[in-house]
Amino acid sequence: MRDVKIKKYLKKLDYSYALGFFPVLELLRMKPTKVIKVLLQEKSDDYKEADLIKFICQKNGLRCEYNKRWIEKISAKKNTYAAGIFEKYEEEIIEINNHIVLLNPSDMGNLGTIIRSMTAFNFFDLAIIKPAADIFDPKVVSTTTGSLFKIRFSFFESLKAYQEKFEFHNLYLLTLTGKNYLKKTKLKKPYSLVFGHETRGIDPKYESMGTPVKIKQTEETDSLNLAMSASIAMYEAYN
Amino acid sequence: MRDVKIKKYLKKLDYSYALGFFPVLELLRMKPTKVIKVLLQEKSDDYKEADLIKFICQKNGLRCEYNKRWIEKISAKKNTYAAGIFEKYEEEIIEINNHIVLLNPSDMGNLGTIIRSMTAFNFFDLAIIKPAADIFDPKVVSTTTGSLFKIRFSFFESLKAYQEKFEFHNLYLLTLTGKNYLKKTKLKKPYSLVFGHETRGIDPKYESMGTPVKIKQTEETDSLNLAMSASIAMYEAYN
Repeated sequence: MRDVKIKKYLKKLDYSYALGFFPVLELLRMKPTKVIKVLLQEKSDDYKEADLIKFICQKNGLRCEYNKRWIEKISAKKNTYAAGIFEKYEEEIIEINNHIVLLNPSDMGNLGTIIRSMTAFNFFDLAIIKPAADIFDPKVVSTTTGSLFKIRFSFFESLKAYQEKFEFHNLYLLTLTGKNYLKKTKLKKPYSLVFGHETRGIDPKYESMGTPVKIKQTEETDSLNLAMSASIAMYEAYN
Repeated sequence: MRDVKIKKYLKKLDYSYALGFFPVLELLRMKPTKVIKVLLQEKSDDYKEADLIKFICQKNGLRCEYNKRWIEKISAKKNTYAAGIFEKYEEEIIEINNHIVLLNPSDMGNLGTIIRSMTAFNFFDLAIIKPAADIFDPKVVSTTTGSLFKIRFSFFESLKAYQEKFEFHNLYLLTLTGKNYLKKTKLKKPYSLVFGHETRGIDPKYESMGTPVKIKQTEETDSLNLAMSASIAMYEAYN
């Protein structure tokens, strides 16, 4: 079985880390074949989550070791009791599903939070238009609280490249200026909710590729945070 | 006019910093009497926002100085072109308005993001149950993108103390287990949307103080991020 050197995360590595009980449990549950090994702190013995982790590892023949020093090496936070080391992977998004499309998401917190909200509102397919924040950075993985391991994601060079591949998807572009409120728009399946960059939003040249829609809000805020807009839009689509 | 020593922010200081064009402009517009002075970088001269800042300062007799070194001293980010130094203040929440109530919010990002969403959805009164993250930390101020200066906020020792002061407010407590969906609940004004701690949520002992409500979501996510739940609930209440 493969082993790896435990060091601070780098984008170029072909493996990454899930930190904390919940992300580790979701990793073990959803992507057991990608697990290289699991690390625990002695202190974790006080928690039932650690028992569950050890049980699943044993059942699946996965290595599980106590090593506080290694955990501290890869986690920025104190009190990280568990770490899962896993191989990076790709799992293509599914044609017939509705999609979330992010144009150049640059903030790791936003990317992670959007993935966390996706699974809450029944979205499991994410298209990312590059360049983008590193989806496997442990900060993103932690922010998803394990939801990363439940979704599929694919990368595209441009929104056009995405649309060419999914030509039957109806694109709804979240903008501040769209004529239609999302709430009053009947989304035609299969659809794609498209969100722009944190500060630049969606380039107006893309608006003809789909239907611009907006979230009803006052004039008092410059704009909502990207993760808020995306979560509200997904909530609205789910309801 | 008062002057202060420019140093790294500390909670115990009676002044704080708004960093970036947009927060500085909102500070000047909404709380001009609290401004101690404004700092600019030379590079800011390429931007129309800097002209507007200088114009407002001149009109209101406020000091505005070029000092890159001081800005770098107080800002963690590179490329901060403007900083507003202001006295901390309190402005009590208004009795007849609807309120947002946060129980011990501990994460500065969440607190700032919730304030940003508040003004987008017509909420201008925030009650914070202590202990809580420091609302005047520059990180919170930046995350609100200036919305902090548009809202009122008051601090309380407990939810009970808050309820005693606002005895006619109807409390709606966001939980994961409430019987009623927020979407189907007619909120009776004046109301308070109450949100629990990031990881502990709302202690069940508080539930009898109001109506527990929940956001419709799948079982696939442990729970939504606090700022997401709060933003979705405010959006729903606004619509």
